[in-house]
Amino acid sequence: MIRIAVDANGGDNGVNTTVPAAMMAVKEFDDIEIVLFGDEEKIKPLLTNSERISIVHTKETLSMGEKDPVRAVRKQKEASLVKALYAAKNGEVDAVVTNGPTQCVVMGAHLIIRRIKEMERVALCPIIPNFDGHPRLLLDVGANVELKANHYAEFAIFATVTAKEILGIKNPTVGLLNIGSEPGKGREIDKEAYELLESLEGINFKGNVEPDKLIDCPTDIVVSDGYCGNIALKSFEGTAKGMGRMLKQEIKASLGGKIGYLFMRKNLKRFAGRMDASEVGGAMILGIGKPVVKAHGNADSKTFKSAIRQVRNMVKADLINKVVEALPKKSGEEVE
Amino acid sequence: MIRIAVDANGGDNGVNTTVPAAMMAVKEFDDIEIVLFGDEEKIKPLLTNSERISIVHTKETLSMGEKDPVRAVRKQKEASLVKALYAAKNGEVDAVVTNGPTQCVVMGAHLIIRRIKEMERVALCPIIPNFDGHPRLLLDVGANVELKANHYAEFAIFATVTAKEILGIKNPTVGLLNIGSEPGKGREIDKEAYELLESLEGINFKGNVEPDKLIDCPTDIVVSDGYCGNIALKSFEGTAKGMGRMLKQEIKASLGGKIGYLFMRKNLKRFAGRMDASEVGGAMILGIGKPVVKAHGNADSKTFKSAIRQVRNMVKADLINKVVEALPKKSGEEVE
Repeated sequence: MIRIAVDANGGDNGVNTTVPAAMMAVKEFDDIEIVLFGDEEKIKPLLTNSERISIVHTKETLSMGEKDPVRAVRKQKEASLVKALYAAKNGEVDAVVTNGPTQCVVMGAHLIIRRIKEMERVALCPIIPNFDGHPRLLLDVGANVELKANHYAEFAIFATVTAKEILGIKNPTVGLLNIGSEPGKGREIDKEAYELLESLEGINFKGNVEPDKLIDCPTDIVVSDGYCGNIALKSFEGTAKGMGRMLKQEIKASLGGKIGYLFMRKNLKRFAGRMDASEVGGAMILGIGKPVVKAHGNADSKTFKSAIRQVRNMVKADLINKVVEALPKKSGEEVE
Repeated sequence: MIRIAVDANGGDNGVNTTVPAAMMAVKEFDDIEIVLFGDEEKIKPLLTNSERISIVHTKETLSMGEKDPVRAVRKQKEASLVKALYAAKNGEVDAVVTNGPTQCVVMGAHLIIRRIKEMERVALCPIIPNFDGHPRLLLDVGANVELKANHYAEFAIFATVTAKEILGIKNPTVGLLNIGSEPGKGREIDKEAYELLESLEGINFKGNVEPDKLIDCPTDIVVSDGYCGNIALKSFEGTAKGMGRMLKQEIKASLGGKIGYLFMRKNLKRFAGRMDASEVGGAMILGIGKPVVKAHGNADSKTFKSAIRQVRNMVKADLINKVVEALPKKSGEEVE
């Protein structure tokens, strides 16, 4: 049985999102057990079916007010996210799903569960929807501001194993996010990372990927430092949302639009569905000793359920051990 | 009379785009004269009205084959773009419009027309369409890989004058592209730039702008280094285009979609128009001694005409002198 901790208090809608998601997930997968870390009083009325679902009671939710995520995690020991992470550290659960604040999730996972010693850096890795219907992995999108070339290599190796095991891609291709497609483009670090990625055995490196290609991406994986990856991802997400809003506004603006909508409602639904993250799940925190998935703060139950599925697949595939095998061996202890 | 050099051979469709655009522009503005730098044999059959349009003959087009833009510009003295830039340098024209390769335009303008001594760096500054219909200025999007804090300040000052004079905005607001909205987010340079921008008199600084806000931007101007600005812009443009393609595909996928289209054709056209750059023009090369505007390589005649209007407005507003007045005084000579 795979034991998954759910940070039930987290996110914009707390238990109203996470509890129905947990019930959907246990119904879908008979190999999982869920531990809800959250406010029992709020959870119980929603928990109409508690088969394979238990509760660890805590009223507290990690507060977004704290500006320093390290302090936030260290000070708020009773917060549902922090308790869920400790449960993973102590081996009480196999994985954690949360829709808490990103930086707190990254830092919390790092500080509490700790990094695997084969990875020098942790990466935040969302699965992004794409034109052809096949999702892509983009990492890092925010765990690191700057990277060294060997970190790009770590991320490429980690993501390659992940794409194989979780997305079922046989020989995943890897690209490097850059402002130009030719080799030699970009900053010094891009040139170094390019050379290193090109030289790595077992990595199917296809060169630079420009951010305008992200939506119809030529590679399965795109590696980046967390700053630029974050810029690209946010620009991507913001534009997609903004365009969706513009379309709605224009359709509603006239009778013709409203009538036309009746005819093409299904088409527009499919259109919206193509950029919808709800089937995809959340962002993986890669490099941590246990699988941790972070869903959007405003994820609905369906999306949160997909995040639970995703973390279950990570555990089931024994992803972390497979990654450890694929990564170059490092001597010495885990570092804080 | 404002004299504008047009790089007639440049872009994906050469004279087929630039010559009709020139004719439209002189028809629209009676205060401009256009000098077409290009292949006379190809221009003449298209030039059905040559009022206030003259030709400087050159068969050559700047070749994209050359990887180093500096070498490309230095070696190809007969290329239409290079000749147009020399005409501006020599005072034969007041401004240049081109749809040639971006890096060659930036480097060529820099090497030939030269930088104004008040600016340490040149910026590539597109006008980006926005949710509310009011365009925004984003700079730099590719002229510089890295910047110092004072360069952000230069760009903010330049763009503020430009937004006032060209976009008619009274007290333009300025944001700093960053991965978080709170002060203190991002890299060291972001923190430094933030502090400097906050301290500048005459700059209406509003703090960090995250890239997901670009499409519905809280400020009139967003400053960035060229690397991250390029990432954000390309992700923005690529997503907008990709979404447009997805929508078309879905509408065509069924009879309901096709019928619906008949009803909402106008709505969809307005939708497409909202993200359309054709009314907006091109990207300005700011920091050069003469106004230079670079249109997209695949710009159509209407878009290229808008770029001509844009450069005409820059000359008419006496933009560069106004910027020089606004910038802190620098001693010494213009540097290469």
